[in-house]
Amino acid sequence: MEFSSKLIENAVNEISNLPGIGKKTALRLVLHLLKQSETQSINLSKAISEMRLKVNFCKNCHNISDNDICEICSNPRRDSSLICVVEDIRDVMAIEKTGSFNGVYHVLNGKISPLDGVGPDDLNIDSLVKKVINNQIREVIFALSTTMEGDTTNFYIFRKISQYNILTSTIARGISVGDDLEYTDEVTLGRSITDRIPFENSLKN
Amino acid sequence: MEFSSKLIENAVNEISNLPGIGKKTALRLVLHLLKQSETQSINLSKAISEMRLKVNFCKNCHNISDNDICEICSNPRRDSSLICVVEDIRDVMAIEKTGSFNGVYHVLNGKISPLDGVGPDDLNIDSLVKKVINNQIREVIFALSTTMEGDTTNFYIFRKISQYNILTSTIARGISVGDDLEYTDEVTLGRSITDRIPFENSLKN
Repeated sequence: MEFSSKLIENAVNEISNLPGIGKKTALRLVLHLLKQSETQSINLSKAISEMRLKVNFCKNCHNISDNDICEICSNPRRDSSLICVVEDIRDVMAIEKTGSFNGVYHVLNGKISPLDGVGPDDLNIDSLVKKVINNQIREVIFALSTTMEGDTTNFYIFRKISQYNILTSTIARGISVGDDLEYTDEVTLGRSITDRIPFENSLKN
Repeated sequence: MEFSSKLIENAVNEISNLPGIGKKTALRLVLHLLKQSETQSINLSKAISEMRLKVNFCKNCHNISDNDICEICSNPRRDSSLICVVEDIRDVMAIEKTGSFNGVYHVLNGKISPLDGVGPDDLNIDSLVKKVINNQIREVIFALSTTMEGDTTNFYIFRKISQYNILTSTIARGISVGDDLEYTDEVTLGRSITDRIPFENSLKN
């Protein structure tokens, strides 16, 4: 694209560096900002740089937090011996929304994916292993996505911590609540039969 | 959504103010920026605010430009008596890319759209009329989109300038080059028959 202004060209290039946003969309966004008040662009610009420069990660669980220790880790009513391992803060938000979990989290900040150049050392795995060694951890729950990368990461961590004699579990895979059997994919349906639970247990919720 | 950090919440809210970007996409973009170097976010932030604060509009044609008069208007080899009226700079870029136009532009910065609260006074129409009155304009070409809003805008401007005895034209509507007749919509096909041109003219290009 040929731009009549270097400023526009620069803004379009920077915006189109974001994932899922191409040059045409970036130009549309720039033209939108030009039609809005200056304040909106300034607020957007400020919010982005402040977010990046001032953001804090919880020293305990690596969740994003405004303080050194996040609200979940510092809450005395949460069970700190029960750790749920997740990929990123979106998963923390999703699980928190269910209201079904009373333990604490450990945010890996990604999953092992050699194709994307992400190895075990790029993730917060060491700090998890240290927690298992030093603290009185009762159970580690793996809540990563059901992909090859997720399974690899689960298995890698499992091998590192299984020797310390703690419970490990993964969240149940199965048919979504409200779903028809006939429309469920075969792998999920198969897993839901292999991983069947005692009927009395299903009455608890 | 519940965020564990005010900074993240603020950034997500500002980004999701952009058209076509919801809260989930905004959060995805924020998490992406957090994984990248600080420089990338700072550059993005700077590019947005500089673009908005320092951007200049050509005093002649309202095209975006780094100087007071844009490159097209200040080019002595372009025919300044031939004005092409367009909606925004994307259209200028599209027409420039064809290499088929040697006149100058007039950017309206939108089209009349009562539903969106855009009236004639919100557009650069007055300055176009003034140009027609004061300058030696030979022809005004309407190159707005073929929508109701585009047609309304065309007609509004036409009524304002038709008394000054200049040529007005609109870009041709018809079948795209390379298209099959049978797949063309009826309205376009109908227009292409009504607006047929002498065969010798079609040999020129």
